[in-house]
Amino acid sequence: MFTSKERIKNDIEKLSKFNASPWEGLTRLSFSKEDKKAREYIKRKMEEARLEIYEDAAGTIIGRRMGIDNHLPVVMIGSHFDSVKNGGNFDGPAGVITGLEIARVLNERNIKTKYPLEFIAMIEEEGARFGSGLFGSRSMVGKVGKDDLEKYCDENGTTIAKAMRDFGFNPDNITKAKRDPKTIKAFFELHIEQGPVLETEHKDIGIVDTIVGIDQYNIEVTGISGHAGTTPMNMRNDALVLASDIVKQINLMAKKAGEGTVATVGNLKVYPGGANIIPKKVWFSVDVRSRDKNKIETIAKEIDELLKHECKKQKAFYKMEKKISVDPVRLPRNISEVLKRKCEKLGFSYKEMISGAGHDAMILAGITDVGLVFVPSKYGKSHCPEEWTDYDQLQKGIEVVLEAVLVIAEKEEKK
Amino acid sequence: MFTSKERIKNDIEKLSKFNASPWEGLTRLSFSKEDKKAREYIKRKMEEARLEIYEDAAGTIIGRRMGIDNHLPVVMIGSHFDSVKNGGNFDGPAGVITGLEIARVLNERNIKTKYPLEFIAMIEEEGARFGSGLFGSRSMVGKVGKDDLEKYCDENGTTIAKAMRDFGFNPDNITKAKRDPKTIKAFFELHIEQGPVLETEHKDIGIVDTIVGIDQYNIEVTGISGHAGTTPMNMRNDALVLASDIVKQINLMAKKAGEGTVATVGNLKVYPGGANIIPKKVWFSVDVRSRDKNKIETIAKEIDELLKHECKKQKAFYKMEKKISVDPVRLPRNISEVLKRKCEKLGFSYKEMISGAGHDAMILAGITDVGLVFVPSKYGKSHCPEEWTDYDQLQKGIEVVLEAVLVIAEKEEKK
Repeated sequence: MFTSKERIKNDIEKLSKFNASPWEGLTRLSFSKEDKKAREYIKRKMEEARLEIYEDAAGTIIGRRMGIDNHLPVVMIGSHFDSVKNGGNFDGPAGVITGLEIARVLNERNIKTKYPLEFIAMIEEEGARFGSGLFGSRSMVGKVGKDDLEKYCDENGTTIAKAMRDFGFNPDNITKAKRDPKTIKAFFELHIEQGPVLETEHKDIGIVDTIVGIDQYNIEVTGISGHAGTTPMNMRNDALVLASDIVKQINLMAKKAGEGTVATVGNLKVYPGGANIIPKKVWFSVDVRSRDKNKIETIAKEIDELLKHECKKQKAFYKMEKKISVDPVRLPRNISEVLKRKCEKLGFSYKEMISGAGHDAMILAGITDVGLVFVPSKYGKSHCPEEWTDYDQLQKGIEVVLEAVLVIAEKEEKK
Repeated sequence: MFTSKERIKNDIEKLSKFNASPWEGLTRLSFSKEDKKAREYIKRKMEEARLEIYEDAAGTIIGRRMGIDNHLPVVMIGSHFDSVKNGGNFDGPAGVITGLEIARVLNERNIKTKYPLEFIAMIEEEGARFGSGLFGSRSMVGKVGKDDLEKYCDENGTTIAKAMRDFGFNPDNITKAKRDPKTIKAFFELHIEQGPVLETEHKDIGIVDTIVGIDQYNIEVTGISGHAGTTPMNMRNDALVLASDIVKQINLMAKKAGEGTVATVGNLKVYPGGANIIPKKVWFSVDVRSRDKNKIETIAKEIDELLKHECKKQKAFYKMEKKISVDPVRLPRNISEVLKRKCEKLGFSYKEMISGAGHDAMILAGITDVGLVFVPSKYGKSHCPEEWTDYDQLQKGIEVVLEAVLVIAEKEEKK
């Protein structure tokens, strides 16, 4: 392998120092003190790799490496460098460092590519500060306007616009972050899996063929409250008993749907919520994801029918409100085929898989060809202090991306 | 009938004016401004009925009516005059007014009883201010000590002791509220049913034969958290899916146990509680009530076994902690037989039934014979602004208690 595990490890460890919660995991919010320090580190590393550095109007860092023909569209490599609150050291940085390491290897080996390259460190992918996730990539595809910068604010009431201005960016320029699709040939992102599949199946590399679609619903079931001691069982209209059945059935629906379809009730609240009061109302969230839009829609329909049926039977009422709906994104085969070939060449085991989480790659897929590579997450954990990927495994992922980039950006053949 | 619906209605309506939340239901906390005004009203009414009035060391109001032999133990009639927050006008006052109305009828009809009578208006039965319910009756049976007055405080941090002192009671005297069991012959309480049984079955009167036993548990189920998008269904360890099954089964266990046994999961909380996070931990309360201690214990055992079995199957953990355990109280047949006879004589339909809620009568049952009479609650509602009992129905209940009191206190036979 041409990549250096030592350098990769060093980058991860250095970046993890720029942390607002050293007592618990990593917290690096956008346009914060920690952002500034991480930004300086990344820019310094880009400088050392002789990249031409600029920051786009959203605050994303871009390091450009000239190609043989600089009129050609660029091949981009990167991910984000912000984090959730009390998250881990790998979600985001692993992909940013992939870019840094590839730039270093190309220099060391004196490789030129026909297409120019851009190494990317995106901002505010998690949305942990402003609740406006995928901010860097959405700005890049022209999906963020000036209004948005005034609409979203952090928990202190600071708008994105104000935070940008305080940080030295001019929010009035935000739409300048938009890239012309014709100027981008491809985007490669390496990310930790954030799930247990690769580890469980002992695979080195995940090659994402589809980023799942997501529907999120809020459901409210209303029965009749009553005294827990004085209301006989056969005269009850208990909203929690009804909701419990729905929660169980939603789980079974996803299992039945198969093909990696998942459904989760992640939050549930009981009203009024006293030990001696029969629950009147239960509110819960439902998150359904699948590679197949039909499966998502079928589950939503099944939930609705089940609610209708149970509420009629038990004289209860329900409301089911769609909060989020994102279609699945099928990634282009031309890139994934290259990734597969490179895994085989390098002797790494791999699995074609779905991505159950959204990533900047999902947004960029709207305007260019995307390659998304996963490396294993220890115990499947992510967004927590225990988030971990062995450096050997991270290096393998970076090596695969390096090899694929050289194909797509057309490495200059030695004469 | 000898009682007056007009007077009963007038008392209910007058007492309902002493209310800290006139915009929503009735709120009358102990040792408050509203307590003071209600207290003055009750004492004035007792005075008009020529009762000898005193307040015991806990703050309970007692109006004594002499018997023919005042060395004999007293027959007590009453209930409490405090309320929950935003409750209704009947829970408590219905039983206090039962006493006032009986005193008035005895005067009008010039009736003497062999045994002296005491008409009681208990304090802090609900525990809405200090979280120390059944305070008046527990003081009367000697179950409240000086320490307790320092231990419990309201939401402003005011202890019972301080509130009593500010109100004009000396908390140092609390143990003087204790009554010698030998001085009490019986205690009659009329209370609204707070459940839907009498209304549903079209019965005028409920004669309580048993006050149910109560066990309350806190249960915590711990699975494994994970990303809702990246964790396949077959690799999950979802605490909420597991808990949902338990909630459903607890409901079925109570139905299977029968004989009025009830079980309720009234509160449930999900951790960490995000739409895209698989629940790691679920906490919930369980309240089990039955006339039969064995049934309560059987259900607790079944819940524990079910948890053990499901947690083993799904590699989860649980904790089950008992918070409250109260044995069922079987009320003496001598009083309930009199009540039944009187219902028959008056032509009122009645039902022998359990009391699913605790009442001051339950505490007094520890030291004397108790008669507990229910009147129907409209739609079974209680502890809410909609709490209602038709005055005709309340009057029937009071008439039955009047007749039974005359038997137990031994009305002087006309020569």
